[in-house]
Amino acid sequence: MNDAPRPLIDPDDVRIFSGRSNPGLAAGIARHLGLPLDPTHVDRFRNDNLEIQLGASVRGRTVFLVQSFVAPVAEHLLELLMMLDIARGAAAREVHAIIPYFSYARSDKKNQPRISITARLIADLIETAGASHVMTMTLHSPQVHGFFGVPIDPLTARALFVNHLRDCRLTPDSAVVVAPDAGGAKSAARFAEHLGLPVAVATKTRISDTQVMIDPLVGRQVVGFRRALIYDDEIATGGSVAELCEILVDHGVADILVACTHGLFLGNAIDRLAHIPQISQIVTTDTVHIPASKRLVNMRILSVAPVFGEAIRRNFRHESLGDLFAFGDGRR
Amino acid sequence: MNDAPRPLIDPDDVRIFSGRSNPGLAAGIARHLGLPLDPTHVDRFRNDNLEIQLGASVRGRTVFLVQSFVAPVAEHLLELLMMLDIARGAAAREVHAIIPYFSYARSDKKNQPRISITARLIADLIETAGASHVMTMTLHSPQVHGFFGVPIDPLTARALFVNHLRDCRLTPDSAVVVAPDAGGAKSAARFAEHLGLPVAVATKTRISDTQVMIDPLVGRQVVGFRRALIYDDEIATGGSVAELCEILVDHGVADILVACTHGLFLGNAIDRLAHIPQISQIVTTDTVHIPASKRLVNMRILSVAPVFGEAIRRNFRHESLGDLFAFGDGRR
Amino acid sequence: MNDAPRPLIDPDDVRIFSGRSNPGLAAGIARHLGLPLDPTHVDRFRNDNLEIQLGASVRGRTVFLVQSFVAPVAEHLLELLMMLDIARGAAAREVHAIIPYFSYARSDKKNQPRISITARLIADLIETAGASHVMTMTLHSPQVHGFFGVPIDPLTARALFVNHLRDCRLTPDSAVVVAPDAGGAKSAARFAEHLGLPVAVATKTRISDTQVMIDPLVGRQVVGFRRALIYDDEIATGGSVAELCEILVDHGVADILVACTHGLFLGNAIDRLAHIPQISQIVTTDTVHIPASKRLVNMRILSVAPVFGEAIRRNFRHESLGDLFAFGDGRR
Amino acid sequence: MNDAPRPLIDPDDVRIFSGRSNPGLAAGIARHLGLPLDPTHVDRFRNDNLEIQLGASVRGRTVFLVQSFVAPVAEHLLELLMMLDIARGAAAREVHAIIPYFSYARSDKKNQPRISITARLIADLIETAGASHVMTMTLHSPQVHGFFGVPIDPLTARALFVNHLRDCRLTPDSAVVVAPDAGGAKSAARFAEHLGLPVAVATKTRISDTQVMIDPLVGRQVVGFRRALIYDDEIATGGSVAELCEILVDHGVADILVACTHGLFLGNAIDRLAHIPQISQIVTTDTVHIPASKRLVNMRILSVAPVFGEAIRRNFRHESLGDLFAFGDGRR
Amino acid sequence: MNDAPRPLIDPDDVRIFSGRSNPGLAAGIARHLGLPLDPTHVDRFRNDNLEIQLGASVRGRTVFLVQSFVAPVAEHLLELLMMLDIARGAAAREVHAIIPYFSYARSDKKNQPRISITARLIADLIETAGASHVMTMTLHSPQVHGFFGVPIDPLTARALFVNHLRDCRLTPDSAVVVAPDAGGAKSAARFAEHLGLPVAVATKTRISDTQVMIDPLVGRQVVGFRRALIYDDEIATGGSVAELCEILVDHGVADILVACTHGLFLGNAIDRLAHIPQISQIVTTDTVHIPASKRLVNMRILSVAPVFGEAIRRNFRHESLGDLFAFGDGRR
Amino acid sequence: MNDAPRPLIDPDDVRIFSGRSNPGLAAGIARHLGLPLDPTHVDRFRNDNLEIQLGASVRGRTVFLVQSFVAPVAEHLLELLMMLDIARGAAAREVHAIIPYFSYARSDKKNQPRISITARLIADLIETAGASHVMTMTLHSPQVHGFFGVPIDPLTARALFVNHLRDCRLTPDSAVVVAPDAGGAKSAARFAEHLGLPVAVATKTRISDTQVMIDPLVGRQVVGFRRALIYDDEIATGGSVAELCEILVDHGVADILVACTHGLFLGNAIDRLAHIPQISQIVTTDTVHIPASKRLVNMRILSVAPVFGEAIRRNFRHESLGDLFAFGDGRR
Repeated sequence: MNDAPRPLIDPDDVRIFSGRSNPGLAAGIARHLGLPLDPTHVDRFRNDNLEIQLGASVRGRTVFLVQSFVAPVAEHLLELLMMLDIARGAAAREVHAIIPYFSYARSDKKNQPRISITARLIADLIETAGASHVMTMTLHSPQVHGFFGVPIDPLTARALFVNHLRDCRLTPDSAVVVAPDAGGAKSAARFAEHLGLPVAVATKTRISDTQVMIDPLVGRQVVGFRRALIYDDEIATGGSVAELCEILVDHGVADILVACTHGLFLGNAIDRLAHIPQISQIVTTDTVHIPASKRLVNMRILSVAPVFGEAIRRNFRHESLGDLFAFGDGRR
Repeated sequence: MNDAPRPLIDPDDVRIFSGRSNPGLAAGIARHLGLPLDPTHVDRFRNDNLEIQLGASVRGRTVFLVQSFVAPVAEHLLELLMMLDIARGAAAREVHAIIPYFSYARSDKKNQPRISITARLIADLIETAGASHVMTMTLHSPQVHGFFGVPIDPLTARALFVNHLRDCRLTPDSAVVVAPDAGGAKSAARFAEHLGLPVAVATKTRISDTQVMIDPLVGRQVVGFRRALIYDDEIATGGSVAELCEILVDHGVADILVACTHGLFLGNAIDRLAHIPQISQIVTTDTVHIPASKRLVNMRILSVAPVFGEAIRRNFRHESLGDLFAFGDGRR
Repeated sequence: MNDAPRPLIDPDDVRIFSGRSNPGLAAGIARHLGLPLDPTHVDRFRNDNLEIQLGASVRGRTVFLVQSFVAPVAEHLLELLMMLDIARGAAAREVHAIIPYFSYARSDKKNQPRISITARLIADLIETAGASHVMTMTLHSPQVHGFFGVPIDPLTARALFVNHLRDCRLTPDSAVVVAPDAGGAKSAARFAEHLGLPVAVATKTRISDTQVMIDPLVGRQVVGFRRALIYDDEIATGGSVAELCEILVDHGVADILVACTHGLFLGNAIDRLAHIPQISQIVTTDTVHIPASKRLVNMRILSVAPVFGEAIRRNFRHESLGDLFAFGDGRR
Repeated sequence: MNDAPRPLIDPDDVRIFSGRSNPGLAAGIARHLGLPLDPTHVDRFRNDNLEIQLGASVRGRTVFLVQSFVAPVAEHLLELLMMLDIARGAAAREVHAIIPYFSYARSDKKNQPRISITARLIADLIETAGASHVMTMTLHSPQVHGFFGVPIDPLTARALFVNHLRDCRLTPDSAVVVAPDAGGAKSAARFAEHLGLPVAVATKTRISDTQVMIDPLVGRQVVGFRRALIYDDEIATGGSVAELCEILVDHGVADILVACTHGLFLGNAIDRLAHIPQISQIVTTDTVHIPASKRLVNMRILSVAPVFGEAIRRNFRHESLGDLFAFGDGRR
Repeated sequence: MNDAPRPLIDPDDVRIFSGRSNPGLAAGIARHLGLPLDPTHVDRFRNDNLEIQLGASVRGRTVFLVQSFVAPVAEHLLELLMMLDIARGAAAREVHAIIPYFSYARSDKKNQPRISITARLIADLIETAGASHVMTMTLHSPQVHGFFGVPIDPLTARALFVNHLRDCRLTPDSAVVVAPDAGGAKSAARFAEHLGLPVAVATKTRISDTQVMIDPLVGRQVVGFRRALIYDDEIATGGSVAELCEILVDHGVADILVACTHGLFLGNAIDRLAHIPQISQIVTTDTVHIPASKRLVNMRILSVAPVFGEAIRRNFRHESLGDLFAFGDGRR
Repeated sequence: MNDAPRPLIDPDDVRIFSGRSNPGLAAGIARHLGLPLDPTHVDRFRNDNLEIQLGASVRGRTVFLVQSFVAPVAEHLLELLMMLDIARGAAAREVHAIIPYFSYARSDKKNQPRISITARLIADLIETAGASHVMTMTLHSPQVHGFFGVPIDPLTARALFVNHLRDCRLTPDSAVVVAPDAGGAKSAARFAEHLGLPVAVATKTRISDTQVMIDPLVGRQVVGFRRALIYDDEIATGGSVAELCEILVDHGVADILVACTHGLFLGNAIDRLAHIPQISQIVTTDTVHIPASKRLVNMRILSVAPVFGEAIRRNFRHESLGDLFAFGDGRR
């Protein structure tokens, strides 16, 4: 998007710092803006307390702090809270928390007694620590937006996916978008609409207390399609995707694309996906850092740096975020 | 539930007041507890300002204020806010807002630019006005729980429905629960599980900018069932239900039951439903007051007074709300 | 004041939106500033919930929201609260609530047990919803200023009145200013001082529980004056004014002018005033919209648009509001 | 009211402490309740910092802190704020500020640019320091009630005055209540109503920039009355009262009673009043401590200790404060 | 302290839960109170998010949550914050955070630019998450007390140490208390005073950028003493203590006792201390759990369970915490 | 520092006002910045209430309010709080409290039961009154920084002292820095490091309940030095310094310099110091105004105006405060 990087905003007015969760993405965002990534010094006292110093003066400036909530989540959270506290305490003009992957968005309701709606708790902690604004991407449910007391812009990677998939020549007669469960139906349908493709929805049945199975019924919906695009907001262990692929293949699907915004690929996820020959491509983003060891040959990692960079630029220039914004995005 | 009403809690410690939206339900709650409903005087100045007086001393007491957000919603909201303000300002010990129907729960996300997540705004207003705790029933989405900064108990009428429907002898081979759209799938499935019945989910297709149509596909799912139970959290104009009934009948369903927690029956809803002969019963509750003119002969209105009354009693006695609580209830 | 309207402030930095209570005044304010009035889309869901969208990007801008608290007051209040919430949530830089008529200023004290000092409650709600600053006009009592936690500028229309009345050639030997009750004495006196006229104060006696009568004593104070100017902050039903006119006429006053900032003219107010031949002129403002049907031939409606426009301009340019400000104005 | 003092509430649940402004009244309140006045140790460091220690454990208890805002006002204010902070920090259950004379209630509006509505500021400081409830007496204007974010009970000494004056045999044909200025009209009228007497109102005219004069007009209103009762909320230097007395005497009044809640008697007030032979009695209260040197022989000081004591007792027992409460009391 | 454990407070009014940092101490506190330790279920989602459930109803109850900030500190902190959030959200009456070791108290000032005073940040987070009261032990500096907005009781283990050391027969002619650096001088002096012993203070000199050395000067102060008691609030790697021992031995000390409240014993601390033959006893407490592998034969671990238990009991009964409280304790 | 004063910042964007505690310093700060000192009108009502008006428009501007907490401390505090309230209420853009001497920093911990950590209370009051930022100098303990919820810059006069003392030719072989007690050891050591001098620390012994004595031991540390520089943050009555001088002289010191940031010189401090012939110079600053009567011939008063002025300028221009900042300064 930005071949010859040059400052789009006065570099002296802005500071960008990264936590330790995803420095590559932070660097990419800074590069997109033609700005330096300012150094963050993180150390640890002998008693395991964190010791953080922001490496450039923030007085009177607009500060952006980039941190994804990947493992170790609690430490990355505290790291961000401390960075927010430092920026506010050092008299920054505005303090923006950029959280590409907000893992706790999954804890968004109380489906058992005496548990925490942790997404709200963390929204409050972020406000307490000094954030004046938050940017994030594809929250698990769009309602989590309402948990924040400060303005928040949940962005979307949809445009990146649509752009990329255009080259894959998916046509409505041969290809179908598949949501791996009912929760993702709405989001998948909206995605399919952008691609001009039909949509099928898998549902799950509880077999026993600990086991859930995908209803084979979804197979009937995909009969006649040669290609399928499985779409979800996040892939963790890849178990559901693998199970779903099996059903799709059983019903005649010969070529499968898998797309997800947050590619966690935990446990033996990579192994599982690598052993399904019908998967021709896995498309994901860098909201979560993916180490080389997990990068399968058929994996395409789209960088969200231009999305966040562009949002920062527009925010700074008071332009509308328009198509970057995830209106109603998320699984519900 | 309570044949010989008698105080379950010291009447001098508690005050129950009702706004003007649903005094019948408030009276029922008080009756369930064996307590008097204390008078609320609502008047109006010539400039349309409200003038409210609580008719009994609240100093040091636990106060319950009952108000549903039905039309005129803005006025009923302000009425509740003023009642909260009065109770707090007059040194009540605890101030509980009982909101059987929280209409703004539908405004729970930002699916267009520059709109308000009004459910969060109103949660904040209720806290500002002085509520120390909130009770409500079946929020449109369970995430709305997280919009509140004060403790909130979203209750459920599910037990009432299950009890009532037991007499209808719905059996898994002849009857199916139907969710009128994807959003309600999860909630319908959970309800079906309680009744030991299978579940089918209708989905909708957008035909034009202003028109949405139920996919006839749902018909295939109900083939072979003679009876269907349509379940939703709220019925407004009844349009979707009517359209759905047509499809069900077309596919062989001969007997339809309709169940919803919040029976608004707006516009010509009553007319529409009255003209579908296959509907043998409409089961709803009194979270929204239903005037005599809307009470069809095949309508059963289950009172939620015992649910709220019981919740108040347990809350007062520090007992767990257990089965009264809507864990993850709502359409999503 | 502004024959050739042209932008006094960079139009891209500012957004002006109007609620539905008084769009004419809002348009006038925008016109005075040479700025467009940005569109507000207000709709209503079937369940009576409001659905509002601001029609122009507010990110990083200074936003002015204009709304008078006229009937339906509760709805206009909620409308404003939602507009404030939208502007703040969409990352506006500053959000100013312009409330030309703040009706609830009358609920400013607790003269009975268990009522609400609603003016304070509403000030708190406005702050909760996101206002960073408030502008209003002639509060019923000047103390209401202190109810707000955010900066507030209560403006005055006094200069407009004094300018206008200059043409009426009221002289201290023939004309007297009359306050219709003790509460308005201070304000009337200050007004009379600006005009260089003497002042008389009517007082009221309670005859029975529901009836209050103007003391005929005021008549003695006006003996010798041919002309009288009755001055009050607001005229609601016009009952007191009519009763007062009768006494004045009985004591020799032949020509009466009536002046009020907020002309509500509720019930049969217009009828009453139209039937008093001695009233040669009724001077009021457009803080409250006056429909054509209420515009008597002897009515002069002074627009406060230049006052608010000027205040906005000076506020934006960091100039003192000086003479626009209602220092101690109001009835007390 | 309380011949044989005995605890009306469990003494171990309650602590009463006094600041240095009016320990006599605090002791009287404690005595009325049959409770000990707990010791407060106030010292001063060499750099003029205050050093305060509450002399009894407050953990889990209901704490009452008594302080009047008399000179040195700033120090007495800080003293109270520190006492509040101590009680809250030491885990008191409730912390009540008892402020018999809230002097800053006079700073209740902005009648010049760039001044402080200090009454609101101080209400906020008191809340910040930890007060959960406030009791005070006869605020200068009743709107000041609305400045507080915590519940507040403004009490009245009216019953004490009415009781006391009953013995003075004031009859409607011979005695009139006189308000010394328009601001006090409403309060005087209400007082007169309780006594069954007529009321007259003095008004003032500005002669020059620095001089204000009572309009002799008030004289006409009192013609025919032999006795007058001048009533105001507070007497500071006594100047207005002295000037008013002169006019009353000139118009035939032979016997004058002066009544005020807050008897400050500053400057040469005592001298002035002592030299008006027609003043047969000055009735005031002990909200402000009156040293022996200021106690004229014709002065009656009614203790408000029973009023505050009774309010504390009722508050503790959750009884209505009813007739102790100053509904709409104050000068306006 | 409590041979026959029995409930000192109504067990139904109280709930005690433990995080995973120090369940042994939590169990000890519960045992001291004769109450059960209620279960906490802590699990982890695949994306490393914590999933916590409190295992007993807390509605209307007084809840105590026990957690020490030991490694992994960030996770134990988040765990506590979630437990606080759950308790508050589930309508507990009071929520007390019991933090025996508050590690971040060391981050109590800004000695470099752009760092965080993390102790204040965490105090704010704890308040945001819902704590109504905090109990902790021996903060690194007593000023940290002032970082909390909610009441906090910093307790002390001093009485435990004094009791235990009485048996060691330390006499003022043969034994001296030694503070390992200037920061600990005040605290060591106070401790020595309780034991009736003299005190010596070691100071440190910076040799290079990364090296600090204990001034041999301290040796001169201990000449003539056969026994020394090194006292500090916390021992981390034991480096300073080892270095100090060497100097003491060089100056004739033959028997060394080491006492610290928080025994972290990180890195090779245990090894270091085990190899100093003159150390006859290491006395510490269980604010930090010490695994069996670190328990040297000459180590005495005094349990602080009775201190916290007693504080809880007194707090619950509204008794003064008196001698349990660490007035001015800490290193400064 | 600034021979030809000229505005370093746009004078129309900034307002500087002074309270009555130290107008000379405020004028010096304004002069350093080449800006006018705007007038503050402070008056007093008859009831001792303060009446304050800021004498220049602050709308939209950056406002600096200068006030030291010297006697009468409570009044100067209230004065500052009112000035903050005025500036915020009059819509200033930023409100900075400049507090050169923050006396209550000494009340920074709870060393007795039921006292107030007043430094925290006052930090909260300052935030409540409307400060958006605070600047101060050499807090008694650096932890007090953490008491503030708004950004605060504690500055240091160290550079001024070091500059000034360079001329005194103190050399490490002949001169030693002496801390008058253990609390000041750290600060004195850092100061000595800047001067390249060795450091000695006096300690104190409690003789009786009310008497404390400096340990003569300090004498041994200074043997061999001809010159000594006593350094402390504040000198109050000068008692400790005088006692310390005696010991120093007894041990051979012939020339003593005394340096302190805050020169209060209370009681007979001036007398005491004047009678010690070995004191060749007393160096202090003007954070506290020193009247002519207290200015000994050997006193040098360094103005901190350039330090505050420079900090204001850098803050306004978003430059780092670098060496002006007191990292970890203070007695501990």
